[in-house]
Amino acid sequence: MRVVQRAAPRYWAMAMAVFTVLGAGMMGSALCVPLVDRGHDVRLVGTHLDGDIVDSLRATGVHPRLQLELPRSIVPYSVDQIAAAMTGADVIALGVSSADMAWACEKIAPYARVAMPLLMITKGLSWNGRALEVLPDVVGRAMPEAVRDAIAPAAIAGPCIAGELARRVPSCVVITCRDPTVLDRIAGLVCTDYYHVRTSTDVVGTQACAALKNAYAMGIAFATGMNERAGGAPGSIAMHNLESAIFAQAVREMQILVACMGGDAASVVGLAGVGDLDVTTNGGRTGLFGKLLGLGLTVAQAVERMEGATLECLEILAVMREATRVLRGTGELAVESLPLLDHMAEVALDGAPVRLPLDAFFR
Amino acid sequence: MRVVQRAAPRYWAMAMAVFTVLGAGMMGSALCVPLVDRGHDVRLVGTHLDGDIVDSLRATGVHPRLQLELPRSIVPYSVDQIAAAMTGADVIALGVSSADMAWACEKIAPYARVAMPLLMITKGLSWNGRALEVLPDVVGRAMPEAVRDAIAPAAIAGPCIAGELARRVPSCVVITCRDPTVLDRIAGLVCTDYYHVRTSTDVVGTQACAALKNAYAMGIAFATGMNERAGGAPGSIAMHNLESAIFAQAVREMQILVACMGGDAASVVGLAGVGDLDVTTNGGRTGLFGKLLGLGLTVAQAVERMEGATLECLEILAVMREATRVLRGTGELAVESLPLLDHMAEVALDGAPVRLPLDAFFR
Repeated sequence: MRVVQRAAPRYWAMAMAVFTVLGAGMMGSALCVPLVDRGHDVRLVGTHLDGDIVDSLRATGVHPRLQLELPRSIVPYSVDQIAAAMTGADVIALGVSSADMAWACEKIAPYARVAMPLLMITKGLSWNGRALEVLPDVVGRAMPEAVRDAIAPAAIAGPCIAGELARRVPSCVVITCRDPTVLDRIAGLVCTDYYHVRTSTDVVGTQACAALKNAYAMGIAFATGMNERAGGAPGSIAMHNLESAIFAQAVREMQILVACMGGDAASVVGLAGVGDLDVTTNGGRTGLFGKLLGLGLTVAQAVERMEGATLECLEILAVMREATRVLRGTGELAVESLPLLDHMAEVALDGAPVRLPLDAFFR
Repeated sequence: MRVVQRAAPRYWAMAMAVFTVLGAGMMGSALCVPLVDRGHDVRLVGTHLDGDIVDSLRATGVHPRLQLELPRSIVPYSVDQIAAAMTGADVIALGVSSADMAWACEKIAPYARVAMPLLMITKGLSWNGRALEVLPDVVGRAMPEAVRDAIAPAAIAGPCIAGELARRVPSCVVITCRDPTVLDRIAGLVCTDYYHVRTSTDVVGTQACAALKNAYAMGIAFATGMNERAGGAPGSIAMHNLESAIFAQAVREMQILVACMGGDAASVVGLAGVGDLDVTTNGGRTGLFGKLLGLGLTVAQAVERMEGATLECLEILAVMREATRVLRGTGELAVESLPLLDHMAEVALDGAPVRLPLDAFFR
């Protein structure tokens, strides 16, 4: 496949910072490209899962999963060099898998300082038994008591396929943080002429969108599988009407959930919401998984076909099922307000067949 | 291309009505399929442009542009039989091109009755020198004075590719009318088990979305052309980040415009807005035209490649340019609130090169 790769632009003298990115997966590594293009000192630390990536970056500069040679000014660190990589960091970015969040928090805690931005690349939602929490808040709380209230958890959201960012495709993202001073500083440090950064203080709304879109993109992809199962081929006449109806219902439900979590429903009508949901439906793992379920494969068969790929949609659906059960009991959520989410959970967690409850949409 | 076509479902006895659809193009003809499936008396009247379609429907039942045999219970009428087709109609649906609206209004005026639904399939916006108007209101005003205030202009919006509806692909649409009684009656008459109908009394908001999406889909498609121009191929790594950023900005600007017109910005976050915008980006004429402009073709070259296809995006951009110029002057629109719309007008009306003002997005 031929892909676009633009040359690195040159910037004039600007404030330089030390960025340590923990997690050398696709997105953590891709973010390093605009950072080095801005002239920052960028340290990319592999986790215990990223050994092959760090080795490859050291040997050839090629990131095996991005299938791309990254700028050699990105300095790769292995997991046992984490102390060296963290020392002196101005900004720590977290791009580990959500399963590794606890481990990552423990590793970075000794280096957290007052007013230090902790920039979350990892997306997810956590249920604490009473409320849904976004990851920046979970991570913030895991920091040492002395700095806990003084660090500034921040996060990136918006439509950004890692493989495109790493190739310097023009991208618009939103960075969110409750501290407007820190927020403006991070945004100013990371933007380039191809990485357009907007800011938002709605941490809950933007991060809820970033997590939920993975689940909803699965549901939107059901339509592709259903079309193929019914004997249709991809093309301009397929089941796009159905797909776009699911898309619209997904946006509606994301607004309901963001409002329930105390976020700003307007964030859904922006880069973090409709923008990221739109880009996530353009293929990728989640879309393939949803398509397989729409085709009629069992969850086990579909998971097997995914060859071990992380399926964020399953994690988020499990969290949401538990959360919505309680929040409906307390009356914080209307019982019948989320027919698409409920159906996706039945399909992906219980093995129910795909049978979209279209008559319940937009009620 | 293999496509899905489901068998006609059977309904038990239900209130039957006489539907006369004026305009035998793709969408007018596709709408006849759920109507005859519901057992209605359906009369499809070709305009002066639809002679070949009517001939083909009579001879073989095949609609040449939908490339599909339609149910023979749809009765085709030629333009000179319009009086016979209109007599006794309970609902008149208008699916003519927006250029033929004045002609169509004249033709249907003698048959308009008190409380008769006039169901608009045609989409568009009209500028009267002081305000933007949606087509149902323009058509309503063109009716005879005796019934003008008593007919009920209604319209259909939402993600619905005609070729899919004609093949009974599950679709969710929204019908809008200010009279809730008429609205519920139409919705009840047209819904089937594959044509899911929601209702809205926000005529301005839903119809503004239906018209604006054609312009914005062109802008979203710029990214596909830009990717190809830069040497990229279609695939999971292309310029999807850019495309989805434009999508999100389009939704934002549609909300601004709907609010300015006195509609409900919430309609944009639904089937008529994000749903229809999403489906319109799945190929079709508008998408191809936008892609050609993104590739660097001049407007004249791009129009030539479209081989005479109607380009609603050009019509709507011309109307919007005139309207926004005045509305900015009166202060009804903030001057810098629509950078995407402004750029699309520069490209499509003035021949400016595609150079998306991403730094002005989400300001």
